[in-house]
Amino acid sequence: MKIALAQLNYHIGNFEDNARKIIEAIQKAEQQQAELVVFSELAVTGYYPHDLLERKEFIEQAEQTIEKIASACTNIAALVGAPSINTDSDGKQLFNSAFFLKDGQVQAIRHKSLLPTYDIFDEYRHFEPNKQFELIELNGKKLAVTICEDLWDEQPTHNVFGKNKLYTCSPFEELSKLKPDLMINLSASPFSHNQANWRKNVLVNKAIHYQLPIVYVNQIGAQTEIVFDGGSCFLKADGSIPVELAYFQEDFQIIDTDNPKAHTQAQTDYIAKIHEALVLGIRDYFQKSGFKDAVLGLSGGIDSALVCALAVDALGKDHVRGILMPSKYSSDHSVADAVQLAENLGIQYDTVPIQNMVNEFEKQLAPLFENTPSGVAEENIQARTRGTLVMAVSNKFGHILLNTTNKSECAVGYGTLYGDMNGGLAVLGDVYKTDVYKLSHYINREQEIIPINSIQKPPSAELRPDQKDTDSLPDYDILDDILFNYIELNKSPQEIIEKGFEQETVKKIIKMVNRNEYKRFQAPPILRVSSKAFGFGRKMPLVAKYD
Amino acid sequence: MKIALAQLNYHIGNFEDNARKIIEAIQKAEQQQAELVVFSELAVTGYYPHDLLERKEFIEQAEQTIEKIASACTNIAALVGAPSINTDSDGKQLFNSAFFLKDGQVQAIRHKSLLPTYDIFDEYRHFEPNKQFELIELNGKKLAVTICEDLWDEQPTHNVFGKNKLYTCSPFEELSKLKPDLMINLSASPFSHNQANWRKNVLVNKAIHYQLPIVYVNQIGAQTEIVFDGGSCFLKADGSIPVELAYFQEDFQIIDTDNPKAHTQAQTDYIAKIHEALVLGIRDYFQKSGFKDAVLGLSGGIDSALVCALAVDALGKDHVRGILMPSKYSSDHSVADAVQLAENLGIQYDTVPIQNMVNEFEKQLAPLFENTPSGVAEENIQARTRGTLVMAVSNKFGHILLNTTNKSECAVGYGTLYGDMNGGLAVLGDVYKTDVYKLSHYINREQEIIPINSIQKPPSAELRPDQKDTDSLPDYDILDDILFNYIELNKSPQEIIEKGFEQETVKKIIKMVNRNEYKRFQAPPILRVSSKAFGFGRKMPLVAKYD
Repeated sequence: MKIALAQLNYHIGNFEDNARKIIEAIQKAEQQQAELVVFSELAVTGYYPHDLLERKEFIEQAEQTIEKIASACTNIAALVGAPSINTDSDGKQLFNSAFFLKDGQVQAIRHKSLLPTYDIFDEYRHFEPNKQFELIELNGKKLAVTICEDLWDEQPTHNVFGKNKLYTCSPFEELSKLKPDLMINLSASPFSHNQANWRKNVLVNKAIHYQLPIVYVNQIGAQTEIVFDGGSCFLKADGSIPVELAYFQEDFQIIDTDNPKAHTQAQTDYIAKIHEALVLGIRDYFQKSGFKDAVLGLSGGIDSALVCALAVDALGKDHVRGILMPSKYSSDHSVADAVQLAENLGIQYDTVPIQNMVNEFEKQLAPLFENTPSGVAEENIQARTRGTLVMAVSNKFGHILLNTTNKSECAVGYGTLYGDMNGGLAVLGDVYKTDVYKLSHYINREQEIIPINSIQKPPSAELRPDQKDTDSLPDYDILDDILFNYIELNKSPQEIIEKGFEQETVKKIIKMVNRNEYKRFQAPPILRVSSKAFGFGRKMPLVAKYD
Repeated sequence: MKIALAQLNYHIGNFEDNARKIIEAIQKAEQQQAELVVFSELAVTGYYPHDLLERKEFIEQAEQTIEKIASACTNIAALVGAPSINTDSDGKQLFNSAFFLKDGQVQAIRHKSLLPTYDIFDEYRHFEPNKQFELIELNGKKLAVTICEDLWDEQPTHNVFGKNKLYTCSPFEELSKLKPDLMINLSASPFSHNQANWRKNVLVNKAIHYQLPIVYVNQIGAQTEIVFDGGSCFLKADGSIPVELAYFQEDFQIIDTDNPKAHTQAQTDYIAKIHEALVLGIRDYFQKSGFKDAVLGLSGGIDSALVCALAVDALGKDHVRGILMPSKYSSDHSVADAVQLAENLGIQYDTVPIQNMVNEFEKQLAPLFENTPSGVAEENIQARTRGTLVMAVSNKFGHILLNTTNKSECAVGYGTLYGDMNGGLAVLGDVYKTDVYKLSHYINREQEIIPINSIQKPPSAELRPDQKDTDSLPDYDILDDILFNYIELNKSPQEIIEKGFEQETVKKIIKMVNRNEYKRFQAPPILRVSSKAFGFGRKMPLVAKYD
């Protein structure tokens, strides 16, 4: 059977554009004599529409769009992801469905059985799980249709109590009893720097276990925090993967399931993948919200330099503007490094010193602050003065402010709310400082873009004389290791100490993480590149006793 | 049977304090010869611990706390809510359970069957639903134990497609087949100004339908955004409610199920209830996070005046500090009204004019802003200068900044991110402007606390000369009605227009609501008093095409 895999980038709620892309792919597949074209999960609406799914007019638009797409399927069949209404008298209002379109009409609808409700997923909020299993017939072949998580019945996702199955049902098991010729999976599987490998393992295991070829269609593109990385593929029943589609870009391939022509992707390391994810994350955030230009503060430090370089990769050098905002604590070389970066990248930059505003704030507050030692309040005035300046530029010219906080800082609350925590999008909020270094070297792989001095000097917020991050934090390699164990691996403080870290350091760091939930609550959306990012994939109570 | 209803205020993760309170209530019930004492849902952990439930050390502490509480139950039985580990080989790791404690031990565990996954609820994320139904025997009586949502199988919660049952299972139906003598429900049912009546209706209907008496135990207290209002009660099989516990405060009553002594609560109107909810919300936010003092900006307007009065009710006048921050656009009477309010309340206040900082910002930005007309960028500089000032006071003295944005403003994005949208807690973020007026009159019910001028003058942000809210918004009674239809009732724009509102106004307002998801994403937590508050009970994609 000739099947087209259509790996596209969708825009949530943009039914017109999504339909146009889908119909173009149908026509292309038809011209190339494919019998079936497969799209990804919730292709019609974009993944994930959240509570737009509770709005009648949204669902009606999705239904109309499916009708429109169906009418394009006259000489070819298609499988398209979209919500469908649950017509039973009880249960959630919707199913997360795959529509089988042929002869200009909806011929069959198959629903998702396993609804993920962990990490960033929240599908039980809107969808009823499928409990009936049926195949679809096309040109004499029997097709089993599943959606994304239906694949993942055996994945030990949250395993701190040693459980190895999250679900009580296995859609592959149920469908394989019906003796299909082929398994098809419509996915919306987000990138995290280890997910692509997990995903391949799961697919290979499923193909081998059920001795079934699998057509797997993922989507690409960023939906605010979440980046879909593509990598759609075809697996033979022996678990080999003759066909793999591109990562981080739209792709379209036609396979002959009996005799697939090899088409593979070059392997890249995790830093290159994170780079691609962040660039796509920035680009889609701007494009899908109708903005072209970014502004950010350039401190001369590595974080802002890296974000600036990523933004130039995503938007082009003419669409990124840097603002240098030195204070009396800024070293000369900080300013020089920031200027060097801007010139290396060829972007517009301006210098707006903050000292006059800071002095004025301190003068006006002097009667209230009399006889108090200078401290965090005064440091934060500097950060908030900078935050106000870059937001003024953002408001004036319609630029989006990019936030440069990294995951290590975000974890321990090393940042000023309404100051350097400002921004429309936190580019590095899921990248630990140790990976910030690696990404910076990657940016410089061909020539020095990020000044080597920005990379090599000891990190400092420069909010008081001779301040260093290590004044209040351990070295970043130790800090990041403790944070990874606590956040990604969900290890208890005791377990982390038993791995060989100093008890005092572990307790102090974990306390900092817990005490700063309130700050992260008001942080910008964070581009997710790990298996556990701050944001809606990690929900903690704000007001709680943690220790 | 003599049963004690223990309606307490729990602190999430504070196992020591929660256990102490629970054990004190057990001892008190025992002294008063009760046979059973009933606590509310997840009493041991507090409701809702979110992803703390994924942490092993958290669950271990919950288990140890249950053991400790059990050992206090030597001459009395108790039903206590806590998570329990799911020992099956598959499914979610935990159940949301009621522990039956007697003779110093855990005698039985019953699990919640219906797990809410709508609005603010997200229980399927952590819990496996119960599917087995068994009674508990105590002193010759057969008790059916249910947990919160188990009551709500017939409530049409999200009904835009006309479905009237959200669940496919009815725990009351299943348990009633086993012929219990009494139904017991452990709850964590949050306040919204219509919820208390819904709840009573559901309970009455259940009692009558199953001809069963019901012991219903709710909790009180605020957990960041969510306020639990109590109102625990005992219903006879005929649906009458002889015993009702207090609202918004801890309470403890012993009932004889065969012969209950009447104990009822005075009826209050919805504005009085919202007042109580907000005061409790502020008080618990401070107390449970270990803070005593609030600071806020006083503009002379009604919103900040109301928040200030609520804060004084919650924390006491010695723990609230007002900051007046006039600009050149502030009218004389604004300053006078703010001073009058502070003096009426007897709080400390200071005046810090913002003009010098604003001038300095504009001077430094002049080279960048050359030849641009003054507009939103300049208005926001004023708001952010104020935001920086109050945060400086907050940081210096360890006060929490209270946010004064109301729901109408929050909906249409009428506020400045990192400016007047700053704060640790948004007190009025779920109160429409029309209710802000009603609450202000309620505050003034005995004497003028909020200056009548603050109530009567036309609302204005005072960010440019002669600015009025009505320059860009319809009158608040029209605005709030449109917003209520869109947000609370989930009506489509077309349905709202059909109710008689101007098409142009409806479309403009809804566009403003949708376009400002990005601002609300970074707003402080909002005290929830309605059935649909902004925050985690209403999740919308940030980057989407809405219209």
